[in-house]
Amino acid sequence: MPVEELNQEERDSWMRALPEWSLAREGKAIERSFEFADFSEAFAFMARVALIAEKRDHHPEWFNVYNKVDVTLTTHDAGGLSLKDMKMAKAIGSLL
Amino acid sequence: MPVEELNQEERDSWMRALPEWSLAREGKAIERSFEFADFSEAFAFMARVALIAEKRDHHPEWFNVYNKVDVTLTTHDAGGLSLKDMKMAKAIGSLL
Repeated sequence: MPVEELNQEERDSWMRALPEWSLAREGKAIERSFEFADFSEAFAFMARVALIAEKRDHHPEWFNVYNKVDVTLTTHDAGGLSLKDMKMAKAIGSLL
Repeated sequence: MPVEELNQEERDSWMRALPEWSLAREGKAIERSFEFADFSEAFAFMARVALIAEKRDHHPEWFNVYNKVDVTLTTHDAGGLSLKDMKMAKAIGSLL
């Protein structure tokens, strides 16, 4: 079953529910930066996100340097943002 | 003890020993891209690199999307490449 891109109304509604996330790539992705005490904590977070990603078969684009993790979510199959990204953003937020 | 930046001769000698790595940031860093079968394998590799990084107290800058991992090594304290980066590159290569 193909994943559908959210329409603008759905997207805006989700963004209000996820105030820590920002739109990126002209509304085709969302992103959030996380900062931890050190690399150990940052990587522990990444390991937990990796488990969520694998379980949902939806994977982040992410960058890490020491205690910082930048996460970008988008749905390639949908050509933009889908429900998968928003639910994943919510799941990631619930780890903190 | 401060970490010293490698001189050009040392750097070039190391680069010949690490042909899979490329100089980046005007010779101040080295980088290498890795590709795996899937996210699970890519993240397993990242977990092993994370353990090496923590043990050596020398951490990569890295980006991952699905089965791809881009690793950049540099030594901020040295303002460029140090022995730490080259030894770390070697250790990462030995994981494969």
